[in-house]
Amino acid sequence: MTTSDAHPTAQTSREVQLAARPVGTPKPSDFSMADVTLPPLEEGQVRVQNLYLTVDPYMRGRMNDVKSYTPPFALGETMTGGAVGRVLESRADGVQVGDVILHDRGWRTHANVNARQARVLTERPGVPLSAYLGVLGMPGLTAYAGLLRVAEFKAGDTVFVSGAAGAVGSAVGQIARLKGASRVIGSAGSADKVRHLTENLGFDAAFNYKDGPVAAQLKAAAPDGIDVYFDNVGGEHLEAAISSLKVGGHAAVCGMISQYNSTEANPAPRNLALMIGKQLTLRGFLVSPHYDLFDTFAEEVGGWIASGELKFDETVVDGIDATPEAFIGLLAGQNTGKMIVRL
Amino acid sequence: MTTSDAHPTAQTSREVQLAARPVGTPKPSDFSMADVTLPPLEEGQVRVQNLYLTVDPYMRGRMNDVKSYTPPFALGETMTGGAVGRVLESRADGVQVGDVILHDRGWRTHANVNARQARVLTERPGVPLSAYLGVLGMPGLTAYAGLLRVAEFKAGDTVFVSGAAGAVGSAVGQIARLKGASRVIGSAGSADKVRHLTENLGFDAAFNYKDGPVAAQLKAAAPDGIDVYFDNVGGEHLEAAISSLKVGGHAAVCGMISQYNSTEANPAPRNLALMIGKQLTLRGFLVSPHYDLFDTFAEEVGGWIASGELKFDETVVDGIDATPEAFIGLLAGQNTGKMIVRL
Repeated sequence: MTTSDAHPTAQTSREVQLAARPVGTPKPSDFSMADVTLPPLEEGQVRVQNLYLTVDPYMRGRMNDVKSYTPPFALGETMTGGAVGRVLESRADGVQVGDVILHDRGWRTHANVNARQARVLTERPGVPLSAYLGVLGMPGLTAYAGLLRVAEFKAGDTVFVSGAAGAVGSAVGQIARLKGASRVIGSAGSADKVRHLTENLGFDAAFNYKDGPVAAQLKAAAPDGIDVYFDNVGGEHLEAAISSLKVGGHAAVCGMISQYNSTEANPAPRNLALMIGKQLTLRGFLVSPHYDLFDTFAEEVGGWIASGELKFDETVVDGIDATPEAFIGLLAGQNTGKMIVRL
Repeated sequence: MTTSDAHPTAQTSREVQLAARPVGTPKPSDFSMADVTLPPLEEGQVRVQNLYLTVDPYMRGRMNDVKSYTPPFALGETMTGGAVGRVLESRADGVQVGDVILHDRGWRTHANVNARQARVLTERPGVPLSAYLGVLGMPGLTAYAGLLRVAEFKAGDTVFVSGAAGAVGSAVGQIARLKGASRVIGSAGSADKVRHLTENLGFDAAFNYKDGPVAAQLKAAAPDGIDVYFDNVGGEHLEAAISSLKVGGHAAVCGMISQYNSTEANPAPRNLALMIGKQLTLRGFLVSPHYDLFDTFAEEVGGWIASGELKFDETVVDGIDATPEAFIGLLAGQNTGKMIVRL
C-alpha cells in the first residue's frame, strides 16, 4: 500500500472546509484546513490518494445558501469537486489497486469513493492525467456539448467566445476552428492571454476586454457579426454579443463569471429586446445532461490532443493548503487555461 | 364599381403618414393625414377598399430610424400594416371583384395591391372578417407558433403569458388550455381585464401587474413554478418568469411592450444568470418564418371559434382619421383583445 509523503497513513486526509459563506469575492478566511480520519472502506468503495484537484467557477455559486440546481456547500464541511486519484485499496469489483480514477471527492488529499460514482481512466501516451480535469474532462465536454449541441454550431459559422483563455473557452475556440468555423474570436483579460489565443491557439482575432468597450472591440473583430456566442462571462459581454449576433443566431450561456461575486442584482444585458427581431436563441446549460456525448468527445478531442492540433494550458498550484488561493486566483482571472492543484 | 361614402371615387385614398419620429410615447402630432390620388392599376394588381385596419405594437419599433429586421417607416410617407379589403377592380388572375383579401397596405382607405402579396380570404359563418387581422391572422398565428413551436409547449405544462388580455396573449392562453395545459396564468393591466381572463377566457389564474410586484403575484398564482413563459411585455415580467421557470423551461419572447417607448436602456431582467443552472431556453421570434403552419392553424383555431371554445375580443375604433389614436391607445393598453380600425 502506497502512502502519501505528507501523511503517515492513508487513513488520514487533509481537507479544505468551508468556514464562512463568502460575501462578494471569497477570502482565505472563508476556508479552513482539517485533518480527518477516514472510516474503514465499505463494500463497493475504493480508497484513493488524490493526484490532481480542480477548482472551477461554478463552485462560487454553490458557496451561497440559495436554492439552486445543486445544494449549497455546507458550512463546516469539506468542499467537493473533481479529482483524479490513484487507488490505494479496493473493495469494489472492477477497480484495481493502482488504477487511476476520476471522481468528485476533491478539495482533500485522500478519500473513500463509491466506485459507481467514479470513472476508471485510460492513461494515454502524451496526455497528462490532469487533462481529465480539463480539456478531456468536464470543462472540455462543456465546451464540446455547449458549442455543438447547445449553440447548434455548424461549419462556416463565425464564433465568439468570452473567457477564451480559460479551460472551457480555449477548448471552445479550438473545437470551433477544427470543426470548420469561418472565423473564431475570443476575449480575455490580459495582453498575454490575447496574444496566446492568436499566436498559439489559432484564434483569428482576440481582444482584451479591459482595453475598451466590449461592443466596439467585438465589432472591430467581427464586422459582419457573429453566428454563435459562447458565454462564460455575462454582463457587458453578453450585451455586446446580442448586438453582434446575426438573425437566427444562438448563444450558449455557460457561465457569468462577471456576476458570481456580485452582491447586487446585475443590470445587463440592456438590449435583450433585440432577440425578438433577430430571432435569437439563448440557452443556459449545464454539462451534466450531456454526458451521453462523453465517448464521442473523448475520442475526437483525445485525437486532436495526440496529433497536437488542439492545445491546452494548465496553471498549476502545488499542495492541498494552496487550494483556497487557487480558487480565489481563478475567480480573479490569474489562470491561463485550467487551474489545477497538484498534490 | 362600389365607392366609399367618404370619398367620391376609388382613385382617391385618405392615408395616415408618419410626420415625425416619436420620442418615447407617440403623440398625435407624429402623424398627419393626406388625400392621395392612386395611379391606374398595373397588371397583377387589384384595387381594394379597406374594411378593417390593424394597429400592432411592433409598428412602434419601425417608427425608430434604426437598423432592424425590417426597414423603418419612412418620414412623410404612408404607414403600412395589415388590412382586410374588398376588391373593387382587378387586373390579377384568380382575384375577382367582390373578393375579400388580406394584405399589407393598411393605414389608408384604398390601395392598389399586388395580388401575389395578398391572400384571398374565406368568409366563414359566424366569423367576422376582422378576425383575419387578429385571432385568425397574424396575432393568432403568432400565439399558435410561439406557444407550440418556439416555446415547445406540451400537454401538462403550466403556462404563464403576459399581456394576456391582448390579441396575442388571449389566444396563447386559450390555445394552451385547449391543448391540455395543466394550468394557465395571465397578467394584464386592469381589474376588468383580469376578471375577463378568468371569467370568460378560461384562465386558471390572472393578476393585475399594477397591484404589486410581478414576482410575488406570479409566485402566488403558480406556487410550483411554470414550464412555459410567453413574453409580450419584457422587463419586470421577464425577470419574474425567469425566477419562476422550472428546470428545462422555455420562454418564447414575442414582445417587450414595456420597453418600446423607453428612451433609456432597460435594466431588467437582472437575474439572467439563473438561466444557466435551470437550463432555460429563451427564444426571440417573429411570426414570418412560421407561415408554413398557417393552414393547420386556421383549421384548428377556426374550428374552436366556430364551436365557441375559443373566444376573442376586439376593441373597435371607427374611421381612418382615428387610426393614430387607436395606435397610441394600444400602446397605452386601452384595448381588450385586438385593436381594430373599422372604415
